[in-house]
Amino acid sequence: VRLLTLLSDFGARSPYPAAMRAVVAARVDACFVDISHDVRRHDIREGAFLLASIAPLCPAGTVHLAVVDPGVGTARRPLAVGAGGQFFVGPDNGLLLPAARRLGDVRAYHLGPPAVPPAPSATFHGRDLFAPAAARLLGGEPLERLGRLINDPVELRWAPGSWRGSMLSGQVLYVDPFGNLVTNIPSGLLRPGAALTLRTARGGRSVRVCATYGAGARGELLLVPGSEGLVEIAVREGSAAAHTGLRGGSAVRLRRRPAPRTRDGSRAAGKGA
Amino acid sequence: VRLLTLLSDFGARSPYPAAMRAVVAARVDACFVDISHDVRRHDIREGAFLLASIAPLCPAGTVHLAVVDPGVGTARRPLAVGAGGQFFVGPDNGLLLPAARRLGDVRAYHLGPPAVPPAPSATFHGRDLFAPAAARLLGGEPLERLGRLINDPVELRWAPGSWRGSMLSGQVLYVDPFGNLVTNIPSGLLRPGAALTLRTARGGRSVRVCATYGAGARGELLLVPGSEGLVEIAVREGSAAAHTGLRGGSAVRLRRRPAPRTRDGSRAAGKGA
Amino acid sequence: VRLLTLLSDFGARSPYPAAMRAVVAARVDACFVDISHDVRRHDIREGAFLLASIAPLCPAGTVHLAVVDPGVGTARRPLAVGAGGQFFVGPDNGLLLPAARRLGDVRAYHLGPPAVPPAPSATFHGRDLFAPAAARLLGGEPLERLGRLINDPVELRWAPGSWRGSMLSGQVLYVDPFGNLVTNIPSGLLRPGAALTLRTARGGRSVRVCATYGAGARGELLLVPGSEGLVEIAVREGSAAAHTGLRGGSAVRLRRRPAPRTRDGSRAAGKGA
Repeated sequence: VRLLTLLSDFGARSPYPAAMRAVVAARVDACFVDISHDVRRHDIREGAFLLASIAPLCPAGTVHLAVVDPGVGTARRPLAVGAGGQFFVGPDNGLLLPAARRLGDVRAYHLGPPAVPPAPSATFHGRDLFAPAAARLLGGEPLERLGRLINDPVELRWAPGSWRGSMLSGQVLYVDPFGNLVTNIPSGLLRPGAALTLRTARGGRSVRVCATYGAGARGELLLVPGSEGLVEIAVREGSAAAHTGLRGGSAVRLRRRPAPRTRDGSRAAGKGA
Repeated sequence: VRLLTLLSDFGARSPYPAAMRAVVAARVDACFVDISHDVRRHDIREGAFLLASIAPLCPAGTVHLAVVDPGVGTARRPLAVGAGGQFFVGPDNGLLLPAARRLGDVRAYHLGPPAVPPAPSATFHGRDLFAPAAARLLGGEPLERLGRLINDPVELRWAPGSWRGSMLSGQVLYVDPFGNLVTNIPSGLLRPGAALTLRTARGGRSVRVCATYGAGARGELLLVPGSEGLVEIAVREGSAAAHTGLRGGSAVRLRRRPAPRTRDGSRAAGKGA
Repeated sequence: VRLLTLLSDFGARSPYPAAMRAVVAARVDACFVDISHDVRRHDIREGAFLLASIAPLCPAGTVHLAVVDPGVGTARRPLAVGAGGQFFVGPDNGLLLPAARRLGDVRAYHLGPPAVPPAPSATFHGRDLFAPAAARLLGGEPLERLGRLINDPVELRWAPGSWRGSMLSGQVLYVDPFGNLVTNIPSGLLRPGAALTLRTARGGRSVRVCATYGAGARGELLLVPGSEGLVEIAVREGSAAAHTGLRGGSAVRLRRRPAPRTRDGSRAAGKGA
């Protein structure tokens, strides 16, 4: 049985994810994996990040049905994308592309109308347009039968964070339910045990690179190499979002601190993994 | 593999939906589709609306296991219902009937005790009574083997909203997680671009009929033809529930406004889809 | 198709449960049952209770993937456990044992590293270590192939509540989403209709044993024989947690009241089931 992942900002409490599932299940057998239906409303970047973090774990033949779609009912194109043996269906607003680009070469198709009536509603393309297309792909129909090849899908790129002198700059890509801040800074840019200063609207805060959440002191602000290969800002048994005031999309600025002479610095270096 | 939908007010955070799933999965292969487990507690009308919105999307043979059951442990009857080739299992309190009536002729059975011990607990019929019955139907057992035919299941009807003179009256059937208000007013009763006044406890509010959520101005109160064929009251990038104070079950009163001479009216008519 | 249950404190809103599902689904067909991903963060006792309430409902061959793991990345051992024909995979911190002990004799294995690279991340053993092991068990690989037999898995035991003189003492094991308090007091220790006094930080509160939630008066504090065979403290159409101030882990002290001469007592005895 092939895998179908679902991602949306419809709200897990709402019946709309079930509507998409039912439409697919009425047409084809599939194994459903809900990535999240609680993407921040209309937050295409957050949805794209989550999709890109799950797709590489999925087998060839997987279809991803992803709908974060502030432009539903307007002229934005509906899309079906193939990459690395997997498929993506959703709006042409950048949502699908980062995940697809992680898998390999991208073929993007402007999705045609559903093969079967009724005509899609203006407000629920997830159910009326994207789910039927996902079912066709799950059923083995070739991608090129679903629409017209295009070469200008809307891209969404997030440059990785990087050093400039003693300043490491990046961005918050995702805030998880515990308030951990996933950044676009590759973990390899930071040495274990390094001590830095995080600049926030509330002033500078000492942070320390630790191998795991548990290695920090309670309440200490940490930089942890996350499971996506990206630096996460975390607080042991606390919310880094609440501690720092940073949110999805916020700029992250970290300044290298001088050699650890201070009490803080030496403690940090001594406990680093 | 046949489809099993699940709906309850048990809370998605609770383990009770999993208990029902496990009981079914221990007996028969099925494809699970959770409609929602966050129906407002004891809100039979909301549960009935959600079930009725999903059932028409499901294929023949689907079994719906729905439990919003303030009367669990009292004399209310347990029910199994067949309609349009699909099946419904749950309490006899009106929850199942609107969905079943949308599918076709209804046969209702007073569900007998489970075929297999133990006797059901007094507090969790979802796990002990309804899930085993759903599994039997999924396994292909004929409906009439599960109980005794009755002709007086509890009905729940919501009359569609309607015009009386210049006043269009209806009711809020469901508030979605974004605060959109789904009403019982058929979309066909409103012309695109029409301007009306919504009467609320806070006074009259101008509203305009738009084809999509995105067509309104930010913060503008809209009437949108929803994906269920029913009018939704919405605010672009906002919560109509918060803007209007209306909730599930609230009366909706819309008064037709005279021809658009005012600045507001003409703008509205000009932008209507 | 075999059953895989999933339980974690990752948050249902997060993408981490989907990551575990995808890893399993990429390797083997399975029927997924999410128990809960909203276990209170790091609350091993709550997770253990939920797992132990679902496992007895599952068929032989079921694999349970459970991750409430404050010690991820530290020296705590990863575990695979067999009991009663079912399997459990997760951290060696007590989480798995109560469920396994309910099913029968327990064989515990110190889980070796994944058969296939890459090496697990330090922060997400659910995806990198436990999910691949669960997939191997689902695929039929023998438990003893996954690691080394140990005889000292970390145990978590909760003694059942019990009477001492006129005082019944116990503990809150779980607070459900409605604020019902599931205790460790076996239902058999209380007679229907009995009247007791619950001691809370806010003083003594009258409580009455009722067969169902619905049998109480609105707002009345009840003791109900719950679906797990354990006493639940409940308030009809209200939250017992809010009424009493009790939380997960709180001590529960109930004092037998003298024969029902008071107005309260006689009302209670008269309405008991």
